[in-house]
Amino acid sequence: MGSPQTERTTVGWAAKDNSGILAPYTYTLRKTGPEDVYLKVLYCGICHTDLHRIKNDLGLAHYPMVPGHEVVGEVMEAGSEVTKFRAGDAVGVGLIVGCCGTCRPCESDSEQYCNKKIWTYDDVYTDGKPTQGGFSQSMVVHQKFVVKIPDGLALEQAAPLLCAGVTVFSPLNHFGLKQSGLRGGISGLGGVGHMGVLVAKAMGHHVTVISSSNKKKVEALEHLGADDYLVSSDETRMKEAADSLDYIIDTVPVVHPLEPYLSLLKLDGKLILTGVINTPLQFMAPLLMLGRKVITGTNIGSMKEIQEIIDFSKEKGFSSMIEVVKMDYINKAFERLERNDVRYRFVVDVAGSKLDQ
Amino acid sequence: MGSPQTERTTVGWAAKDNSGILAPYTYTLRKTGPEDVYLKVLYCGICHTDLHRIKNDLGLAHYPMVPGHEVVGEVMEAGSEVTKFRAGDAVGVGLIVGCCGTCRPCESDSEQYCNKKIWTYDDVYTDGKPTQGGFSQSMVVHQKFVVKIPDGLALEQAAPLLCAGVTVFSPLNHFGLKQSGLRGGISGLGGVGHMGVLVAKAMGHHVTVISSSNKKKVEALEHLGADDYLVSSDETRMKEAADSLDYIIDTVPVVHPLEPYLSLLKLDGKLILTGVINTPLQFMAPLLMLGRKVITGTNIGSMKEIQEIIDFSKEKGFSSMIEVVKMDYINKAFERLERNDVRYRFVVDVAGSKLDQ
Repeated sequence: MGSPQTERTTVGWAAKDNSGILAPYTYTLRKTGPEDVYLKVLYCGICHTDLHRIKNDLGLAHYPMVPGHEVVGEVMEAGSEVTKFRAGDAVGVGLIVGCCGTCRPCESDSEQYCNKKIWTYDDVYTDGKPTQGGFSQSMVVHQKFVVKIPDGLALEQAAPLLCAGVTVFSPLNHFGLKQSGLRGGISGLGGVGHMGVLVAKAMGHHVTVISSSNKKKVEALEHLGADDYLVSSDETRMKEAADSLDYIIDTVPVVHPLEPYLSLLKLDGKLILTGVINTPLQFMAPLLMLGRKVITGTNIGSMKEIQEIIDFSKEKGFSSMIEVVKMDYINKAFERLERNDVRYRFVVDVAGSKLDQ
Repeated sequence: MGSPQTERTTVGWAAKDNSGILAPYTYTLRKTGPEDVYLKVLYCGICHTDLHRIKNDLGLAHYPMVPGHEVVGEVMEAGSEVTKFRAGDAVGVGLIVGCCGTCRPCESDSEQYCNKKIWTYDDVYTDGKPTQGGFSQSMVVHQKFVVKIPDGLALEQAAPLLCAGVTVFSPLNHFGLKQSGLRGGISGLGGVGHMGVLVAKAMGHHVTVISSSNKKKVEALEHLGADDYLVSSDETRMKEAADSLDYIIDTVPVVHPLEPYLSLLKLDGKLILTGVINTPLQFMAPLLMLGRKVITGTNIGSMKEIQEIIDFSKEKGFSSMIEVVKMDYINKAFERLERNDVRYRFVVDVAGSKLDQ
């Protein structure tokens, strides 16, 4: 395993350009510093953000780029000042690996909103070197950005919690929407949306899936356990359901009208946007004003919240619907994700894959 | 004064059609029921909503219509079950005079969001008769919708608190934004906006007025006591002020871009809309998501909050800038209000006017 002062080489799968095609790539990890954890990657989920990043849809991409930010691993070595973890622990890493530590967001356990946060990949670390993600044999991560995965939680199940899971958990937590008995809506049944149904049901909410078509009705009701299913173009049912929901988590990643959702909300109801949409969205001010309704958006979750959703998932025992694949399938998996052909999350069995070929 | 069982006639100034011209109008008040208060009107503020209503801008207007919902009066008679008020008390009435009393908003002191609320005028009361507002000699109002004006608060000063004042107080109260030391923004310096500066300053906030031009800079800083003044087209200063405000109360009543405001907000900052705008507003979702920012809108305030802003005003001793006029000036006042030619609120000295000519 080498001493903590050794730089190690590792092999990941990287995109070399904005074609987004991943292929084996050998690079160096930084030395395991006193507060770092060196981990062997076991599983890594595939998120829609990975697709945007490898294709440079957001601009400013750095290549070669090893994506992956739903990383489940095993601690191989812990730095001398690491107290939370030791070799052999199952751990997780999410979308960020650094922050300033002193700003207001950092000081209020909201480091995901720090202006100096460092993304897990496609960013530059404090040592000036590029960060690389979880589709790799191994990583070195500061202990603050590592969470513990408790015994008894299936490791491949933990992966989607690290981004999709906390993306729905964080707004429910932050906006005081965790108590049993609430009525929630989930719009958009992809990786994040399906997790929204599971998390909200585990909290004891009455969950309505809102969709533009009937296509996923059976799945939503029978497989995911949603209580109701509304097609947004069905005016009669939408009218019946007006003024009935405490919140809607809107995961739809393309431009869409908000009025139908706002109408479904009760007094003080919250429309929570989690999908990155780079086209303006519209709303009518009176629809907010006549019910003190809120439109907000959140960005993943804090490290504290990641630990909470993992522990909550173990406690409640819900399972996300995942398709486990090997690394040599990853380009195909990204193709399928692009056309929404996955129910509902790919997870790569990294440790079970040969990465160097 | 007559017995409580007597229907009285009264004289108000009513619009007869959507020209919005007001003229004397004699009508009957309902009997003072056991829970009603019969009051002589002393002062009544003129609000922009009155202008919309008398001209039927919102549709469905009922004529003849006596507007006025910032009503300050003196109790002449209290029903047998009225415990809070007695003859001689100075009292106030705001924008609503009825609600169902049993829905979730009503049960949570948010009756201004009750779907069955009854507007002070241009509505139908439970007895089937039209409601008529405060530009009148007298009114009969259920005690729930009457607030006490404490000794020592100038009565003409109390009038604008009943709508404009509570419109800014309510969101600060509801969203936990009352504590000293916050940094707030006020956009739009009309009747509501100028009250926003006064209320926020009285709470001990650092207040920035945000405007499309420099026209009101001296007034905002020197007369109203704002701490800063930003012209939204001044990119340099807007950039310097990014990420600095806990909230913005946006009183602008016409369509306008929200991005500049959202950029000024800190993590968890709130953009609070109070102006009725019947054209869609736009925003970019990532601007919300990268700071968990909130867009919301509120509608006046609860009776509890009206009492609170009145008591707060007395405690802090701030004075709104009003122009007191007589009833025979009211049509001219509406004309001036329509072209924003008032600093900042007209209040009609109703008791000091001859209403029947």
